[in-house]
Amino acid sequence: MTAATRPTTVPPTGGFVLPAPIPRDLPAVDRVAEAFRRIAAADRPEVWITLRGEIDVRADAAAVDARVAGGESLPLAGLLVAVKDNIDVAGLPTTAGCPEFAHTPGVTATSVRRLQDAGAVVMGKTNLDQFATGLVGTRSPYGAVRCAWDPELVSGGSSAGSGAAVGLGLVDLALGTDTAGSGRVPAAFHGIVGLKASLGLVSTAGVLPACADYDAVTVFAADLPTARAALGVMIGPDPADPRSRTWPADVVLGVPPVPVLAVPRTEDLAALTDDYRDAFDRTVARVRETGCTVVELDVSTMLDAARLLYDGAIVAERYSAVGAFLDGAPAGADPVVAGIIGRSRDVSGPAFADDLDTLAVARAAAHTVLAGVDGLLLPTTTEHPSIAAVQADPLAINRRMGTYTNFANLLDMAAMAVPGAPTRTGAPFGVMVVVPAFADQVALDLAALVTGDDPGPAVPTGGLELAVFG
Amino acid sequence: MTAATRPTTVPPTGGFVLPAPIPRDLPAVDRVAEAFRRIAAADRPEVWITLRGEIDVRADAAAVDARVAGGESLPLAGLLVAVKDNIDVAGLPTTAGCPEFAHTPGVTATSVRRLQDAGAVVMGKTNLDQFATGLVGTRSPYGAVRCAWDPELVSGGSSAGSGAAVGLGLVDLALGTDTAGSGRVPAAFHGIVGLKASLGLVSTAGVLPACADYDAVTVFAADLPTARAALGVMIGPDPADPRSRTWPADVVLGVPPVPVLAVPRTEDLAALTDDYRDAFDRTVARVRETGCTVVELDVSTMLDAARLLYDGAIVAERYSAVGAFLDGAPAGADPVVAGIIGRSRDVSGPAFADDLDTLAVARAAAHTVLAGVDGLLLPTTTEHPSIAAVQADPLAINRRMGTYTNFANLLDMAAMAVPGAPTRTGAPFGVMVVVPAFADQVALDLAALVTGDDPGPAVPTGGLELAVFG
Repeated sequence: MTAATRPTTVPPTGGFVLPAPIPRDLPAVDRVAEAFRRIAAADRPEVWITLRGEIDVRADAAAVDARVAGGESLPLAGLLVAVKDNIDVAGLPTTAGCPEFAHTPGVTATSVRRLQDAGAVVMGKTNLDQFATGLVGTRSPYGAVRCAWDPELVSGGSSAGSGAAVGLGLVDLALGTDTAGSGRVPAAFHGIVGLKASLGLVSTAGVLPACADYDAVTVFAADLPTARAALGVMIGPDPADPRSRTWPADVVLGVPPVPVLAVPRTEDLAALTDDYRDAFDRTVARVRETGCTVVELDVSTMLDAARLLYDGAIVAERYSAVGAFLDGAPAGADPVVAGIIGRSRDVSGPAFADDLDTLAVARAAAHTVLAGVDGLLLPTTTEHPSIAAVQADPLAINRRMGTYTNFANLLDMAAMAVPGAPTRTGAPFGVMVVVPAFADQVALDLAALVTGDDPGPAVPTGGLELAVFG
Repeated sequence: MTAATRPTTVPPTGGFVLPAPIPRDLPAVDRVAEAFRRIAAADRPEVWITLRGEIDVRADAAAVDARVAGGESLPLAGLLVAVKDNIDVAGLPTTAGCPEFAHTPGVTATSVRRLQDAGAVVMGKTNLDQFATGLVGTRSPYGAVRCAWDPELVSGGSSAGSGAAVGLGLVDLALGTDTAGSGRVPAAFHGIVGLKASLGLVSTAGVLPACADYDAVTVFAADLPTARAALGVMIGPDPADPRSRTWPADVVLGVPPVPVLAVPRTEDLAALTDDYRDAFDRTVARVRETGCTVVELDVSTMLDAARLLYDGAIVAERYSAVGAFLDGAPAGADPVVAGIIGRSRDVSGPAFADDLDTLAVARAAAHTVLAGVDGLLLPTTTEHPSIAAVQADPLAINRRMGTYTNFANLLDMAAMAVPGAPTRTGAPFGVMVVVPAFADQVALDLAALVTGDDPGPAVPTGGLELAVFG
């Protein structure tokens, strides 16, 4: 199916507007009550795999209210958070989207615990493309997750329920994970923010691996300052995560007065629908108006590397994580997911080694390509398909959707997804600011240029004091 | 074979003494002439796979003499260097120890070129365990390389000819490569120095990969200051090497006034022969006398990780490098090497991924173990076997010899091998100072404590000015 013949995105009537956030000035207990009212009214049960009981959540909220009343300064006081169901929360089952995989951990993932320590309250665990394998949100026995503003369209995945929960205004924050774009594609479809920091900055302790070497925990929020505050709380070294990394001593702290933002050449944008291509051009025009210098870059190195994630041998990391479990043919296995992971069983070790070598070369080349600019602006995804279209063609559309997201973790880059200019038909359209590892602060500042937000306070860094310039 | 029943190392008569170096104050052309006299006198043809013609080498030396006469300050002026034959030198065949693999590159490896730029003169290419697979120096159709001071003993490998060339006093410097210890074991057997810097500091451009992600170019010399000067010249970023890394901005520049050196627990030393155990203890006593604080450390995490290099799936990187070539069953293939690499063809991708995961955990754990000390002192190898013993039992002895060297590259550590106290029978015995990646300066300073050398000038760093403290 070419771009021209793909179905047109269905716009929300009158153009896309996010639901009003739950008022921030309410006590946490009242915010919880409002969230449960909204959850009932939304009637989107597929968003949740485990929704906590209101009494339990209110108890947590009351504890936060008490901490605030006691004088504690909590950066996320009373913010409600949904947690993707491949991330552990003590006492709640972790299913990763497969009922037979369920187990109830006794320890909460570091990322979630840090949000809780900062005053956030966990609402429940959200639906996902099973084992975080997909960008669509339809690959789950708990139901295909419908887009918040049009139930015929996909929510995006794999952090499907998390993206939809924020898009529906049910929570303030939602955690995703992102190996191939799972923390960014749902943001694009919902007109929200999805932040994927450099690998190792946010602990993956307590997260079920997809591809252990390329997994990031991400955060969704309706606006950049909220997402940024949550990310700041989550970043920091964690002895429980062997892949934890700290900011280098010479980390770049922000953009120069006139940032240089790269955009892809026309040929690198061929995967976009006409609607999306038009929205991307208008987003670039908007960024240009902020005073950024915009330059064109050949990003084919990145786009080619993207193919290594599923078409290459590295997918064997997915078999390493859950393959033996799927070999038992559990009834709840999603057939598409089981097919992808099952095929990776037969990847050879030498092929894996070959791809690691290809990847090392691509990583160096891509970092050279980016060396002359402050960041790269890319469309987050190529199109917004309907659930029916994805179910009819479960692999090809999903693959195309990852064109611009797949490479970031492979090539050791951070990618901050924010809303761009809406499409001509009024639908949300998402873009990403992509930077080399540890230039996260630069990416966040550039993302604020795109959204028109104030850059806001620097991301706290757990060991390194950072200031933001520009 | 237990430590007690292994053959005793044969001592050189009257205790081990290295040959006198070729005088440094001679013009380069005269140094070349002396080297060729020594090469003829030594009668060790197996050291070389390609020895350059004396006329060619003298021409290079004359050019260096002219540069010096012209006022150039060359840190390695007139030093003679032997190059392991898996490292390219333009115009000389690269065989990697297999005649059928020979090809003649047009470009010289970055490491060699930097030595030449600094005034070194290449004598030729040296024999090795084929495809750098081995620690013994016997696995080559060009002949088993005999130990410089006892032709019945192995030279150590895989950088066999390079180690022996320095041990015989034929050259001032020799390049090795080191994946599992190949740049350190021959140093131990010859009472010389073998420096393996952190991965990525010395470019591997122009080097045939063994395990591409874990290969380092190393340097041998009779003494630490000479080796250190050569290493300093070689270190520096190289766009031609995708795995090139630069010093972090917060690199540690040297040891504190009273360094803390760790040594293994008694049980971690069980692999040593009695002779080597005794020599290690006396080396530790000598280091203690310098005022170092010596502490005992459980290094089982490192020793366990070592097994991943050959017993695990990561050996598939060797198949990725030369497996397809060996599948053609070239007549010159060493049967032991072909067996090891051929078996790695059948490693599965998921097993590879599993081992990468195990390795990530081990790497983090090992760095935690080392966090409280300045460096770790280890025996370089376990025993000095005869060529006959290795040929009778080609795998088990080699494996045991790598007990203390295998892990360094896997766990991202630098390891500087220097002579320790000789054995009771007067044979050389080698030790290593092991440190986390980028603490190379610390390791070099600690190594100088072991050898009694002046720490010498800091290693030049190609972009970062370093001073040595302590």
